Amino acid sequence: MHPLENLTFGQYSFVYNSLSFAIATLGAATIFLFLSRSQVSVNYKSAVTISGLVCLIASYHYYRIFNSWEAAYSVANNVVTKTGQPFNDAYRYVDWILTVPLLVTELILVMRLPGKEGSNKATRLAVLAVIMVALGYPGEISNSAGTRWIFWALAMIPFLIIVFDLFVGLKDAIGRQPEDARGLVSAARWILVLTWCFYPIVFVLPMLGLSGPGSTVGIQVGYSVADILAKAGFGVFIYAIAAKKSEAENPQGLRDAGYASAGAVAR
Amino acid sequence: MHPLENLTFGQYSFVYNSLSFAIATLGAATIFLFLSRSQVSVNYKSAVTISGLVCLIASYHYYRIFNSWEAAYSVANNVVTKTGQPFNDAYRYVDWILTVPLLVTELILVMRLPGKEGSNKATRLAVLAVIMVALGYPGEISNSAGTRWIFWALAMIPFLIIVFDLFVGLKDAIGRQPEDARGLVSAARWILVLTWCFYPIVFVLPMLGLSGPGSTVGIQVGYSVADILAKAGFGVFIYAIAAKKSEAENPQGLRDAGYASAGAVAR
Repeated sequence: MHPLENLTFGQYSFVYNSLSFAIATLGAATIFLFLSRSQVSVNYKSAVTISGLVCLIASYHYYRIFNSWEAAYSVANNVVTKTGQPFNDAYRYVDWILTVPLLVTELILVMRLPGKEGSNKATRLAVLAVIMVALGYPGEISNSAGTRWIFWALAMIPFLIIVFDLFVGLKDAIGRQPEDARGLVSAARWILVLTWCFYPIVFVLPMLGLSGPGSTVGIQVGYSVADILAKAGFGVFIYAIAAKKSEAENPQGLRDAGYASAGAVAR
Repeated sequence: MHPLENLTFGQYSFVYNSLSFAIATLGAATIFLFLSRSQVSVNYKSAVTISGLVCLIASYHYYRIFNSWEAAYSVANNVVTKTGQPFNDAYRYVDWILTVPLLVTELILVMRLPGKEGSNKATRLAVLAVIMVALGYPGEISNSAGTRWIFWALAMIPFLIIVFDLFVGLKDAIGRQPEDARGLVSAARWILVLTWCFYPIVFVLPMLGLSGPGSTVGIQVGYSVADILAKAGFGVFIYAIAAKKSEAENPQGLRDAGYASAGAVAR
């Protein structure tokens, strides 16, 4: 745990409002994805369900982080004072160890690979993702720049294998996607990789000479933005792919979904 | 952050009750819109879902604003005293940066423009909306009337472009709406523009000589009324358009949806 910094009211409020923004965005994305399950065919419901779960888990953790932030400081007459209570940043790693493997699973599920290929690839990517998050943690809680760099480098190994898998390992499978959805699936890989690049960058902020309150604010706001893009943004993208593929595979079925089961049975 | 004013019990309660009214109205609109999704065809479900999300995000923020207002003052024997805790007004801007682009997206989605036209127009309007809100914030947190006027004027530029887009850019698209829904869609534009006019008016209240407690009460009650009309009112209107268009496109399907599976079994 890092020693907490003394913050100005503006710095405290910027983190406070970013954390609340993350709760609102991830919570709204959860409801959007759960409701939108009804608009995709049965083949893609699990991908959309898991996208919603990732946002739900993240909004739960942001609610916890927000409360922990509020408890760690007291504000009176625009002066911010440390209360002595810890700010529990570990919520982020607890969140990632659960949500990051689910994010790669979303992508593989929405691709709907034949036979064992899907579950094999999903398992491999999920295990790599767990190793990546687990290796980042010992660096994150360390105050030594040397230790931070070592675990940063170690976590980059599974990260690079994941990038390789997404771009080389999935190349054939993307070629087999329906034409309408191919561009979207390919873009989803890019979104995953580009949003994940935020994390190692935010991680190195304190090692690049950004220290003190600026570093605290940068880390909290940076991770919040990264989580919103990688979870809510990516989730809405997964829904768009699922809707497009559902329509391509069965235009009539989708219309039936809109009119509930009665119309289908009556025919 | 403005210095908090000393308020009478009546002034304090007026804001307090307005904020609670906003929680109730926006919360009720959320549930109405989520439940009513089942009464529109699959083509319009996303428009109604997003209308509900806007109300949900706003009711979350009103809950936070209400709690912040309660914490900033203590009341004993009808005397209102400042506690020294900040009243976090920034929640409004955190809310708008998320909900205002979604409001224009609702309108474009319910119009169901062909091909890329819809996503192009929605993206353009959403970006303009984000710029508009972002330009308002530096003015809102300033106590200088000069600074407030500058950012007010800057935020009016994207606002006027949005108005132009809605009335000139969407003219053709409105002509292509089904006859039954054309009047409603045209009216929705008017509601959007007229309710949005509240915000720049409330913003200038303190610059027009309305100062002290009257200004605080005017801003809080004014923004609450504006949010209720622009989000709950507009959302219900979007649902009405969606229901009318669903019926026009497939009267039988809609009746089936209304009767769900029970009707199917009976047949």
